[in-house]
Amino acid sequence: MTTQNRQVTLYHCPYTRSTGALTLLEELGADYQLHVMNMKTGEQRKPEFLAINPMGKVPTLTHENAVVTEQVSVYLYLADLYPEAGLAPPLGDPLRGPYLRWMVFYGSCFEPAVVDRVQKREPIPEQRSPYGDFDSVIRTLLAQMKDGPWLLGEQFTAADVLWGSALNWTTQFGLIPEVPAIKQYIARFIERPAYKRALAKDAELAAAQAAAD
Amino acid sequence: MTTQNRQVTLYHCPYTRSTGALTLLEELGADYQLHVMNMKTGEQRKPEFLAINPMGKVPTLTHENAVVTEQVSVYLYLADLYPEAGLAPPLGDPLRGPYLRWMVFYGSCFEPAVVDRVQKREPIPEQRSPYGDFDSVIRTLLAQMKDGPWLLGEQFTAADVLWGSALNWTTQFGLIPEVPAIKQYIARFIERPAYKRALAKDAELAAAQAAAD
Repeated sequence: MTTQNRQVTLYHCPYTRSTGALTLLEELGADYQLHVMNMKTGEQRKPEFLAINPMGKVPTLTHENAVVTEQVSVYLYLADLYPEAGLAPPLGDPLRGPYLRWMVFYGSCFEPAVVDRVQKREPIPEQRSPYGDFDSVIRTLLAQMKDGPWLLGEQFTAADVLWGSALNWTTQFGLIPEVPAIKQYIARFIERPAYKRALAKDAELAAAQAAAD
Repeated sequence: MTTQNRQVTLYHCPYTRSTGALTLLEELGADYQLHVMNMKTGEQRKPEFLAINPMGKVPTLTHENAVVTEQVSVYLYLADLYPEAGLAPPLGDPLRGPYLRWMVFYGSCFEPAVVDRVQKREPIPEQRSPYGDFDSVIRTLLAQMKDGPWLLGEQFTAADVLWGSALNWTTQFGLIPEVPAIKQYIARFIERPAYKRALAKDAELAAAQAAAD
């Protein structure tokens, strides 16, 4: 694995969902370069980028000839690419299954449930919803968080970078209830040096974009 | 890997999303047992099952002490557990990233976009939707399918079990456009012996449940 070229490129817009992926790259000590785009000028909807990711979304990752889109797959891919960082329970580890579960739960349940809440949509009958409803999602998440300090217990994983980032911005926007378990989890997460480095980088990139506008 | 106990239990309701997971178990030649529940009598919402998966959803998988929920993670977990079946590009394979991408895209984009379509919801501004809108999702999927015969090209993977199953039932219910590329993909998928075995098993299980009602 270590003789392979592991340099990746992250297509990134400051202060967006890709900030979490940037935090993960910092946590992993990964070899990466950034392709920075300005979301305010809609750079992520331009043909050059749509040719890479037709959904026009960040984070998008490239590694050699492969394109990896969707937050959850970007995280899964990166954490396995840098196994020495210990942020992904390896295949065969008893935590591998739970790790995949909580990674996928984020994109398949949490995100669409939050969108429904933001859009003030009526919950639909549970049998017809692949992601249940907002209340079940939050209840399920809180039940998992009660042991802590991290989502899978003692071991900090890439799933915590995903959830730490997401819970941080969704509580800031008032989208999810700021109960003590969530507040404490976020407090632990934002104290991590990798998160601070990612945030400092975003501040710098956003300032450069503002100056260029 | 082969000395480990690889027997898994699938919590399954016939003719639901877990039929795809059953198909995957058949494709993998996996060592599995089924815990069959009757969705018509709401067995998947009873406390015994909610203690395993608080979302009350199938497929749910258990392996030794681990619980794996969410379709996409169940598939990722199983395909890696039985690497000799060759349905998951291994870590380090150039197809590993695209494989994760299209797996995650299913749960994070396709499912919620289909729900929006079924519920006749107005699309929301793309910047506010983590899964874009229905049309972008279908367009992105079709662009990927054009090379074929499978989602990642020549190699049939667990992602095709997921997408083959899903496209099959969503077109049957008229939820997505039955364009030629999708029809041909489904036709290839439903010819596979593993799919036929899973379907035969579901017919048998559903008949037993109907007799017991």
